[in-house]
Amino acid sequence: MKHFIFTALLILLLTPCQAQKIIGFKTANTSKQLSLEKAFEDKISTTNLDAWMKRMSAEPHWVGTEYGKKNVDWMAKQFKSWGYDTEIATYYVLFPYPKIRVLELKSPTSYTAKLTAVPVEGDTYTEQGSALLPSYNAFSTDGDVEAELVFVNYGIPADYEELERRGIDVKGKIVIAKYYGSWRGIKPKLAAEKGAIGCIIYSDPKDDGYVMGDVYPKGAFKNKTGVQRGSVMDMPLYPGDVLTPGYAATKDAKRLERSKAPTITKIPVLPISYEDAQPLLKALEGPVAPNAWKGGLPITYHIGPGPAKVHLKLEFDWQLQPAYNVIAKLKGTDFPDQWVIRGNHHDAWVHGAADPVSGMVALMEEARAIGELAKNGQRPKRTLVYCGWDAEEPGLIGSTEWVEDHKQELQEKAVAYINTDGNGRGFLSSGGSHSLQAMVSEVAEAVIDPQKNVSVKERRIARDLTNGGNDKFELYALGSGSDYTPFIQHAGIASLNLGFGGENAGGEYHTIYDTYAHYKRFKDPELAYGATLAKTAGRIVLRLANADVLPFEFKQWHSTVSEYLEEIMTQCDKMRKEADKHNSLLEKNVFQLAADPTKPFTPPAKKASVPYLDFSPLQNQLAVLEKSIHAISLKNFNELPAKQRSELNALLLKSEQTLTDDSGLPRRGWYKHQIYAPGFYTGYGVKTLPAVREAIEQEAWEEAQQQIVKLAGTFRNFNTHLENILSISGK
Amino acid sequence: MKHFIFTALLILLLTPCQAQKIIGFKTANTSKQLSLEKAFEDKISTTNLDAWMKRMSAEPHWVGTEYGKKNVDWMAKQFKSWGYDTEIATYYVLFPYPKIRVLELKSPTSYTAKLTAVPVEGDTYTEQGSALLPSYNAFSTDGDVEAELVFVNYGIPADYEELERRGIDVKGKIVIAKYYGSWRGIKPKLAAEKGAIGCIIYSDPKDDGYVMGDVYPKGAFKNKTGVQRGSVMDMPLYPGDVLTPGYAATKDAKRLERSKAPTITKIPVLPISYEDAQPLLKALEGPVAPNAWKGGLPITYHIGPGPAKVHLKLEFDWQLQPAYNVIAKLKGTDFPDQWVIRGNHHDAWVHGAADPVSGMVALMEEARAIGELAKNGQRPKRTLVYCGWDAEEPGLIGSTEWVEDHKQELQEKAVAYINTDGNGRGFLSSGGSHSLQAMVSEVAEAVIDPQKNVSVKERRIARDLTNGGNDKFELYALGSGSDYTPFIQHAGIASLNLGFGGENAGGEYHTIYDTYAHYKRFKDPELAYGATLAKTAGRIVLRLANADVLPFEFKQWHSTVSEYLEEIMTQCDKMRKEADKHNSLLEKNVFQLAADPTKPFTPPAKKASVPYLDFSPLQNQLAVLEKSIHAISLKNFNELPAKQRSELNALLLKSEQTLTDDSGLPRRGWYKHQIYAPGFYTGYGVKTLPAVREAIEQEAWEEAQQQIVKLAGTFRNFNTHLENILSISGK
Repeated sequence: MKHFIFTALLILLLTPCQAQKIIGFKTANTSKQLSLEKAFEDKISTTNLDAWMKRMSAEPHWVGTEYGKKNVDWMAKQFKSWGYDTEIATYYVLFPYPKIRVLELKSPTSYTAKLTAVPVEGDTYTEQGSALLPSYNAFSTDGDVEAELVFVNYGIPADYEELERRGIDVKGKIVIAKYYGSWRGIKPKLAAEKGAIGCIIYSDPKDDGYVMGDVYPKGAFKNKTGVQRGSVMDMPLYPGDVLTPGYAATKDAKRLERSKAPTITKIPVLPISYEDAQPLLKALEGPVAPNAWKGGLPITYHIGPGPAKVHLKLEFDWQLQPAYNVIAKLKGTDFPDQWVIRGNHHDAWVHGAADPVSGMVALMEEARAIGELAKNGQRPKRTLVYCGWDAEEPGLIGSTEWVEDHKQELQEKAVAYINTDGNGRGFLSSGGSHSLQAMVSEVAEAVIDPQKNVSVKERRIARDLTNGGNDKFELYALGSGSDYTPFIQHAGIASLNLGFGGENAGGEYHTIYDTYAHYKRFKDPELAYGATLAKTAGRIVLRLANADVLPFEFKQWHSTVSEYLEEIMTQCDKMRKEADKHNSLLEKNVFQLAADPTKPFTPPAKKASVPYLDFSPLQNQLAVLEKSIHAISLKNFNELPAKQRSELNALLLKSEQTLTDDSGLPRRGWYKHQIYAPGFYTGYGVKTLPAVREAIEQEAWEEAQQQIVKLAGTFRNFNTHLENILSISGK
Repeated sequence: MKHFIFTALLILLLTPCQAQKIIGFKTANTSKQLSLEKAFEDKISTTNLDAWMKRMSAEPHWVGTEYGKKNVDWMAKQFKSWGYDTEIATYYVLFPYPKIRVLELKSPTSYTAKLTAVPVEGDTYTEQGSALLPSYNAFSTDGDVEAELVFVNYGIPADYEELERRGIDVKGKIVIAKYYGSWRGIKPKLAAEKGAIGCIIYSDPKDDGYVMGDVYPKGAFKNKTGVQRGSVMDMPLYPGDVLTPGYAATKDAKRLERSKAPTITKIPVLPISYEDAQPLLKALEGPVAPNAWKGGLPITYHIGPGPAKVHLKLEFDWQLQPAYNVIAKLKGTDFPDQWVIRGNHHDAWVHGAADPVSGMVALMEEARAIGELAKNGQRPKRTLVYCGWDAEEPGLIGSTEWVEDHKQELQEKAVAYINTDGNGRGFLSSGGSHSLQAMVSEVAEAVIDPQKNVSVKERRIARDLTNGGNDKFELYALGSGSDYTPFIQHAGIASLNLGFGGENAGGEYHTIYDTYAHYKRFKDPELAYGATLAKTAGRIVLRLANADVLPFEFKQWHSTVSEYLEEIMTQCDKMRKEADKHNSLLEKNVFQLAADPTKPFTPPAKKASVPYLDFSPLQNQLAVLEKSIHAISLKNFNELPAKQRSELNALLLKSEQTLTDDSGLPRRGWYKHQIYAPGFYTGYGVKTLPAVREAIEQEAWEEAQQQIVKLAGTFRNFNTHLENILSISGK
């Protein structure tokens, strides 16, 4: 045996030029693929990116605007010119436009919020006046309320626990919350659950203003008038058109009554600037806010309630608007019924130079280059579907309606969905299905960083290492916040989300300052990372399109999912210890003794003790999976005969779907995926193994145990699928 | 055996009233002592505290003022009236009074700092105009400098490392540093070492202003005009009169030339308000400060250097001033040559209602009550020495000169020194020699918290537990910052520092707002904790004064010192791992790859690798000590015959001194104690096992190894002393 190893080593060492290997490619096809990718990269031009960005972001173009339609027609024309079969898939979706927005401080002083960001010198785009969409939160309900104000920090569950400890109730009050800490839609959702009748969200300068850096136009950050727009639709319940849950919003679709639409907020919500927030916050009395709640305004942050009393009046024009998705197909030579889908949205809150145009133009340049290669006879083996989504901003509407419309076909044909959105300068950020991690890692090793001349993977890891992280390349798990959501979480299509950033901080997000002028000064001035994004996503598309065996790898999936389970089990133990410790302190009267008697104090409640859950069904299934996955890893699928490879690919294409369950997650059946979901109380933030994890977080122990069993069933199905894969090679 | 235990238990259970035990008292004397303490407590009156505070803080009374002398004469008269032999011990000490204070922003804009806090409504004390001491830092050198400004965060070593990473040098510049993060004197000391030519210190509203809470007079916190005065004398080198290091500043003492005094700063230093700081900071450009550096002003914090250019001119009137210590003795009945010393300073920067008067009046009320008991025939067995120190604020001058003057006598007679200073409301804070920890713990169990009606120990532990701490009662180790320093660190007298706080936050410290009016609203309005402080310190004084065997206990000393050694060893390992990791990242070029190429970047330097030190001399000596201490713990010293007890007490009295080394700490021979010292680069902050710890922190490996050997020698001497103690009981 020893002799054998030695000989093998010798052979390896003596091989003069070891051919590079890439996942999913026969040795014979590898260098051809790499040459193709090189040719593709050589065609990427930053000049196009720059010109197209300038064009697409010249005017505001939210869903339903004239300029939005102009962009759609222009994009479709471009795709067609590059050889794509292009159609515009139109849906009719509810979209509220703000008619009345009033926010007044009524007492003890009076102030009327301006609700308008100012144009700035050197950026003519900000001077378009009434053409700019007024700042508001889409899918806030109409409302006219007046009440005392309460400051609730970020307005997330932990903040309400803190309020409870101080005996402060928001029932019948209007809350004011800072942006960040969660996805914005969580703030009015929770506030309403707690009995508040209105919700104001503002950008605090500590998180998003002068504390971060110089403000626009001197620097990139949010000036005192800037307001972040954004949707507050209850997307963790379901995204997409609020009136057509789970099915396409076609012209004649049956629609819910608006008053019955469950994803419209229960209370009116309005986002404001820090200039408008300051008089309101300053007028609050009551306890001083905890240190972690304090922002960067030059005031003492008090919680209230009151004496500040505010009046909030909101009325929207609720209209159906046409949402235009541009769908451009390049038919594959060998496997036309296997689709590699690539998407970015095109609608913006205002000009959207960064969000979404920077990503959209990278997608287009990528499509152009691949189209050119196809014209030169290097057409991909599988069909490519390039998508420009409309109405992403109000709630992932364009993509969701399209996925709902084509769900069955997608589940038959879609190999994977690769998403991008706004792009910046710096480091590769990549999230998605962990069965694709190994492939993405290889691509990240192949793409060169434009600033440092090393691979984007090496640079990403360098950043992780300097931040105290490790040197592993890992995909983050997908929550929500962009158009991958309907693909992965509803249809079970393996998905990725890609972008560059970390060196382009600014405060322009969803404001009138997200302009071409701002982008060219502060985000990715040379569009160099736009080109790098095109190269990264394009290589991934080309590998998925041309692979002999679809490049899914399950060892990394297994270790990641095992870590998720480990996390949850540790979390459970931690909760148990904390509850026990808390209760023992409570018994000793420690909280009461430590409290300052001159301040209001509500003794904390006794915590329910945390039972021991039976995680063994999951542990056992993961052990079974580990064996199957190990067995798969020993196979050399790439060199199988074509027929078997074809069967294999058909199975691989569906592997992610076996991780879904058609009944969905508890209380939100639209979300089918059992590994990844946006958190019910975090919004964009992901919850992995969500049904089990969230039941534990909510201390719903019986449900947690049921969901463990259900998830173990999902793992079992996945294993059956892997066994089918294994059996192919055995033939 | 089982039967025996059962019987023993039964006896215990059946004993109707188990007599309480207190450390150092014969069973026969215990209840008498407890009754005495009870009688003492019953005499404590908050009415006196209130009236005396109002009187003493009616006018400013820094060293050398007329009102200060009036307070001294009045205090002396009081002590005399209570039966104390009272003298005024006078020293002649250098004290600078600010003649010229100019701070101007010269470019790019211009601003002249106001340097004056405003009087506020409802507090007439703040209206005394020119009678208020102008804000300044005592023992700043004279100077007239003009240069570009650099923001250096807190101006501590880690901040200069951060500047270095950004390639920013302060040579020839004026630095502006925030208060806090270290004792203030460290800021000009380090700035001068780094080549700066001037230093401005300001109170940032995040640490000390509106971010903390409402500002004076609405709330307790620092308004925009408030300035913290304070000494910047290089106290970590030696405290006390700058011209007479190590000996008393008597009238005819030989004095250093002022230009040769090593504890006067090398560069001019001026403290300013945040109102005055804002225009200066706003005029800075250059890199945005790291997040941890940012304060609470409504600006973007930049580092500079420049373009802000400032002019700083300071001139002081350097005069010798008489410092009057009030020394009041109550001769002991049985052991008149064993002194229990109790002190608090009486000088203030301005009115000093909190600092120091709140502590001074508690000391006086305690002395009055004990004096009354003495008049009624309950005179303590040992001599009590009550001290009111002058000139503490400019540099612990009154106490240091007195200790230097009486060092030999103190080392013969002093049982312990118990210090207090400004007092507030809330939780017992107690630091000191760990051989006194067990006794302090017993006293803390006996004194009742005035708000919660449990012992002050129980309440302190409740707070620790709610803050995530444990339920052990522990003394913190003494660094510096009050008058215990010459006692413990120079003369080796076992010392304690006591106070209450945690529920009296405010921004009055060393400002014109530390007034009776402020104290009565925000600190300890009923003076209830003033009374509790008198009770706590008084019980400690009475136990030390009357104990049959001086209440030193070494088991807790041993476990604490063992923890210090453990900390240092862990720290060493951590430094080694960090250096190795840092160097391995450096080799991989990770820092350069992760850096933003559009920002200045200086690659970090390679770190010297950390050798393995031989800690075994300390480990071995601690093992030996553990045995001796265990043997002592088995003895019942209390019941020894009087003669042996007398020998024993003579040894116990000197036990702390065996922890000193006459050669002192490296480069600062004034500091003799080998277990506790203020940090050379932290100022007030303690460094335990300082010679070893600081050598390691400074990466002076050879010195660290030498100091390990030296410290082991100190431990050996201590053990010899303990063996002598043991041998007494063996007689």
